[in-house]
Amino acid sequence: MTLATLAAADAAIATITPGKGLVTIDWRGGGSDPFHHVWLRDNCPCPECLHPNGQRLVDVLDLPEDAAPRKVTLDDRGALLIRWDADGHESRYPADWLRRQAYGLAARAARQRKPVLWDATLKPLPEADWPTVCRDASAERRWLGALLDHGFALLHGVPARPGMVAEVGDHIGIVRTTNYGRLFDVISKPDPNNLAYTALGLGVHTDNPYRDPTPGYQLLHCLIAEAPGGDTLLVDGFAAAERMRVEDADGFELLARVPRPFRFADRGSDLRARFPVIGLDADGAVKEIHFNNRSAAPLDLAPELVEPYYAAYRRFARILARPDLTLTLRLAPGDLIVMENGRALHGRTGFDPNAGARHLQGCYVDKDGVESRARVLERGG
Amino acid sequence: MTLATLAAADAAIATITPGKGLVTIDWRGGGSDPFHHVWLRDNCPCPECLHPNGQRLVDVLDLPEDAAPRKVTLDDRGALLIRWDADGHESRYPADWLRRQAYGLAARAARQRKPVLWDATLKPLPEADWPTVCRDASAERRWLGALLDHGFALLHGVPARPGMVAEVGDHIGIVRTTNYGRLFDVISKPDPNNLAYTALGLGVHTDNPYRDPTPGYQLLHCLIAEAPGGDTLLVDGFAAAERMRVEDADGFELLARVPRPFRFADRGSDLRARFPVIGLDADGAVKEIHFNNRSAAPLDLAPELVEPYYAAYRRFARILARPDLTLTLRLAPGDLIVMENGRALHGRTGFDPNAGARHLQGCYVDKDGVESRARVLERGG
Repeated sequence: MTLATLAAADAAIATITPGKGLVTIDWRGGGSDPFHHVWLRDNCPCPECLHPNGQRLVDVLDLPEDAAPRKVTLDDRGALLIRWDADGHESRYPADWLRRQAYGLAARAARQRKPVLWDATLKPLPEADWPTVCRDASAERRWLGALLDHGFALLHGVPARPGMVAEVGDHIGIVRTTNYGRLFDVISKPDPNNLAYTALGLGVHTDNPYRDPTPGYQLLHCLIAEAPGGDTLLVDGFAAAERMRVEDADGFELLARVPRPFRFADRGSDLRARFPVIGLDADGAVKEIHFNNRSAAPLDLAPELVEPYYAAYRRFARILARPDLTLTLRLAPGDLIVMENGRALHGRTGFDPNAGARHLQGCYVDKDGVESRARVLERGG
Repeated sequence: MTLATLAAADAAIATITPGKGLVTIDWRGGGSDPFHHVWLRDNCPCPECLHPNGQRLVDVLDLPEDAAPRKVTLDDRGALLIRWDADGHESRYPADWLRRQAYGLAARAARQRKPVLWDATLKPLPEADWPTVCRDASAERRWLGALLDHGFALLHGVPARPGMVAEVGDHIGIVRTTNYGRLFDVISKPDPNNLAYTALGLGVHTDNPYRDPTPGYQLLHCLIAEAPGGDTLLVDGFAAAERMRVEDADGFELLARVPRPFRFADRGSDLRARFPVIGLDADGAVKEIHFNNRSAAPLDLAPELVEPYYAAYRRFARILARPDLTLTLRLAPGDLIVMENGRALHGRTGFDPNAGARHLQGCYVDKDGVESRARVLERGG
């Protein structure tokens, strides 16, 4: 059961049971959740405590230290009603709001958005037509949902003209300008300042690990694809990390705990950052990968960790190179791929720049804008 | 001794001692550092292994698994010379390069940039004149160094015209456009979508904790300051966190370990993110604070942590409100303050919008660009 499918009746309050420092709510649809007095007082939704824009008006230091209710009841619309002892303030909490905020174990687990892991066999691909996405908010909502679930998604029919990639970027989020500019051309060019601008094959990697904050999403738009080769390789870094966790738990732990330095420097820039190769959230779930052998700076860690670290790093590199994890795509002019940079590692096969032209344009957008847009579209849906 | 003050002779190699899996280098200036074979092979600086732009050309999977030297010597210029057993490849490491990359305990400690903690008594302020900074690269380097050390710095003499704040932002880094635009006006206005746009006093806070990535730096430029009040309050969040660590170790641990949700929503946006209030790096040093009571969303954590969390949160809020930690500044037209958003918490005293006009403009820039610029200027110095 997800919260989206929760019927209004299920979210209704069946009974309230006062306890020490908290109220326990049993839901009509089954299950129960605790709500602590201090939490309830802090989250009073009355217009004195909460601005209509959702911002809190009461400083935590102005709340009574000992939030104790004088009276706890249900009102005639089924909302939880509390009159507070210290100052007589009255708080009213709608049942469905409480249900959405519940922090019992099951409620928290049900709210987690789980990534859909994939490998070389992924079908169908998360994809949509750009003109449809522009026209139809629910098509865009579904496509953005697929992007968030899989860590990448394709758009077809994006007009193959320069600059278009940044227009798409500003549609789904907000383009982040970097030292490479608002957008960048991926095209073999003489005297390249970055290996991306050569015709070499590139192993799968995440972009710009030497940059903090690292870009959240990368967009690549195919304008010309005449050269044989240059196919796009994609690996789900979350799936690869889960394999690593199973196959080499100690190595996984090292890559997750010990940050490694990355660097990129040219005439005008000297970008340096440190990240663990496998970034975990507070619950130990894989959150983001930083893997880019070209930009890896010399390891800088406790001497006794050097050999175990290299063994773990090599092992993870070997997992990332597995054909059964590698999805191969050939982008045609008008195709645009959006990749969650910390998850969908990308690379390319080599190509012969003399056998035909190849021109992609790329840009970066941050996570905040993309996720915000997905939520705003879900409101409407 | 810092590396910057290290004389060339000190970085010279006195002796090399082969060991199991590593070479130990004794420096002529004293001290010694281990360099593992696997590390040396991975960091071979020859043009086959390293592109002139500093990017690695050899994939970690193409390195010999067992990096063993056939011969280790010093060449006639004092560089470490290794011929590798597996493939006869030759690597030459200049002594000063090795010294800069050394990962022995003392070498790693000496490289750490330590923040300069401050409180209400800070004097002199980190500040400079904008025209001087524009004209004189070494003045800019010193000012940027002060910004990195203190987490904030002032500029005076910035022409008090709208839009100038983004020009300064693009000078010291790269402006990040958000849902608030490329820059934003802080001015009391009717029907505000954010409490920043009212005349209320604001307790010290970090900006946009509901945004991932959270902006690295905020710039605020004073255009008009006629209204009495509206003084700027600044607290060093790193200093406050260190007080918390000493005064309430368990509370510190909770605030550092357990992320809390933040949210901002209006018609076009629904921004949500989770961060621990006190963010630590892998060594346990304080790295960034996320503290903004107005944008704090209802706590969502294991029920048994709710009461201890509130106690810790309240305690930290009380530390952040201490007058002895609070620096008070009055910005005049032409003053611009740059703040490391995750460190220098800022607030303001209330003001009377009817007693005179008040107009600030602000923008955000990310850390990568600012730190890169500081390094590029240090190269020149």
